[in-house]
Amino acid sequence: MANPMDDCDFNEIEDKAVRADLLRGALPACQPQEGSPANTFTASEMEELQAALPNMQIGPLKKTQEVKKADFDICHHAWPTDKKEQDKKLSSVASPQEAPLDWHGAPDFTLRPPDVPRAFREKVRAGAFVAPTNAVCPGFLQCNLVVLPAGPLAFDFLLFCQRNPKACPLIEVVDEGFCPTGIAPGSDLRTDVPMYSIYKDGKFVEDVTDVTSYWPEKAVAFLIGCSFSYDGALMDAGVPLRSAEQGKNVPMYKTNLKCRPAGKLQGNTVVSMKPIPALKISKHVEITSKYTHAHGGPVCIGRPDVIGVQNLDKPEWGETVEMAPDEVPVFHACGVTPQSVLMDSKVPFAITHKAGYMFVTDMPSDMGC
Amino acid sequence: MANPMDDCDFNEIEDKAVRADLLRGALPACQPQEGSPANTFTASEMEELQAALPNMQIGPLKKTQEVKKADFDICHHAWPTDKKEQDKKLSSVASPQEAPLDWHGAPDFTLRPPDVPRAFREKVRAGAFVAPTNAVCPGFLQCNLVVLPAGPLAFDFLLFCQRNPKACPLIEVVDEGFCPTGIAPGSDLRTDVPMYSIYKDGKFVEDVTDVTSYWPEKAVAFLIGCSFSYDGALMDAGVPLRSAEQGKNVPMYKTNLKCRPAGKLQGNTVVSMKPIPALKISKHVEITSKYTHAHGGPVCIGRPDVIGVQNLDKPEWGETVEMAPDEVPVFHACGVTPQSVLMDSKVPFAITHKAGYMFVTDMPSDMGC
Repeated sequence: MANPMDDCDFNEIEDKAVRADLLRGALPACQPQEGSPANTFTASEMEELQAALPNMQIGPLKKTQEVKKADFDICHHAWPTDKKEQDKKLSSVASPQEAPLDWHGAPDFTLRPPDVPRAFREKVRAGAFVAPTNAVCPGFLQCNLVVLPAGPLAFDFLLFCQRNPKACPLIEVVDEGFCPTGIAPGSDLRTDVPMYSIYKDGKFVEDVTDVTSYWPEKAVAFLIGCSFSYDGALMDAGVPLRSAEQGKNVPMYKTNLKCRPAGKLQGNTVVSMKPIPALKISKHVEITSKYTHAHGGPVCIGRPDVIGVQNLDKPEWGETVEMAPDEVPVFHACGVTPQSVLMDSKVPFAITHKAGYMFVTDMPSDMGC
Repeated sequence: MANPMDDCDFNEIEDKAVRADLLRGALPACQPQEGSPANTFTASEMEELQAALPNMQIGPLKKTQEVKKADFDICHHAWPTDKKEQDKKLSSVASPQEAPLDWHGAPDFTLRPPDVPRAFREKVRAGAFVAPTNAVCPGFLQCNLVVLPAGPLAFDFLLFCQRNPKACPLIEVVDEGFCPTGIAPGSDLRTDVPMYSIYKDGKFVEDVTDVTSYWPEKAVAFLIGCSFSYDGALMDAGVPLRSAEQGKNVPMYKTNLKCRPAGKLQGNTVVSMKPIPALKISKHVEITSKYTHAHGGPVCIGRPDVIGVQNLDKPEWGETVEMAPDEVPVFHACGVTPQSVLMDSKVPFAITHKAGYMFVTDMPSDMGC
């Protein structure tokens, strides 16, 4: 039988105890993230998980744990069965650009060779991974994507992000070409996101895996931080992630918190909700507020009605998460906000990632904070 | 004789001991700030100061000290002698706009009625104050100003700030009209800065006190944080400000630290230098790094040659400051950077504040950090 830590296909493992072990090991890395509509566990995997871990307590992620190839292979529903076909596609992918960045403060990738996200992006580019990314490349920053035609609307969106940094923490702006060299050298934003959504006149048109034919001749691509970044740090500090324990996506709600408008763009903040034990909220705030690149500290604690959320059981996105009696609902600005705003503002054209299908960068998920 | 703490004209005080007391009291507030080319003391005031305080040790600013009208009157070289003329001008100034801001996170000025900066701006608008602002309105944030025509260049500059947040910490962007309601309701950026500089094709043209006739029909005004903000906190913590003790402006240097370019804008970081006692550098970093809206922590400590500064005695801006044997040169990104970059990039047209003649806002200088 295969060693579970080797590169292997989860579905090929027949031993139930080994499968449960694998699931237990993968759980912290597989937690759903804000803005991600789907959990990466299949229904049958969840059943096994619940059977294997009846009184599940999620332990902290080891800070020093090595990133293993298996960490991003385990949840792949979409690995191609034809190995040869995959290798052929991969070999056709151009080598990543290796020239060092020449501005002060540029990330130095020589310190931490980012083989794992690069290899992952190449698989995405080759069409070999089409699934939500919340399980992939732990330790590396994932980003929301918004692509707009260059011009006044791009200025408005840049200004919107500057004015609403909690909802739209801008990680990178790519105003020429499609390679965010600052955070993911050698990548191609037209092909390296597992799934994209196309919007016209503020309405959803379709989901596609390659936007080469949609990319405007002159475009600006915005990459926005994602709260996946601090989930590991929270668990390290003993702050539980109930949605992951319950095998659910986080619930997300539209609020009455008006964003500061910018030009033609306006709308309200979307928040995600985490139930946090009352005795751990302070620690939760201390940790998350350091992650200003990933929505930072909560916008509201304990009183949903204050932000216009009347019924916690009816989230606009995601799933309802059960709350224990000692827990308080804690709300964070959410990466779904810009997409909601682009729709509310009826922008003529936009490409975004499909919610949950993020762009994986070479940056550490804590960006050194 | 007038009580020195009352509203009075410094130059009308004949008692030398009272003048020295006033200078001693005003010193922490009068410290020169990064990006400010001139000290607010006149030569004769400095002579008096040095005579009055031969072994000067600057004490910490009291955090709770009240802002007194005298605090921003004392260094006014430019008060009009004709009181009636001034009152007439002031009465013609429109009432500041009082509508509350309606977006989440908007500053709530009801908590701290900003009468002092508002009154100061009205005096500037009336032509009754034309001098550097480093002595005025202690406790309130002052900003560098850059005004560009709307369009691609404004996008480039916005992106430049986003990409170089240490040198260009963006506080506010005014893309319609000339009133930064978010930070200074009721103000007018065309008249409320004591002195402006006009640049054409990257070259300085002239300094003026009113840019109404220069303001582009569609303009974007950028307000950038100023390191004045943390000088008070440093002194509170016992970190000395040698330039102020020596009655000098801070020395500023062009470095070899290339900014990250944005569109047509590129150039190198300008830094200011503070001599800091070796035993206090850690504290200095702890404090300044919290002020991300005001250039944050140092970019280089202890080795000028590493950033291309060959001779500390030859600053490009400001004045040489003497260093004690136990002190180390500490370099911060400086608000002169964007002006230097605009010139290096030969932009067709720009309005900026004249270095040292800042725009005074209603925001607390620590922005709540």
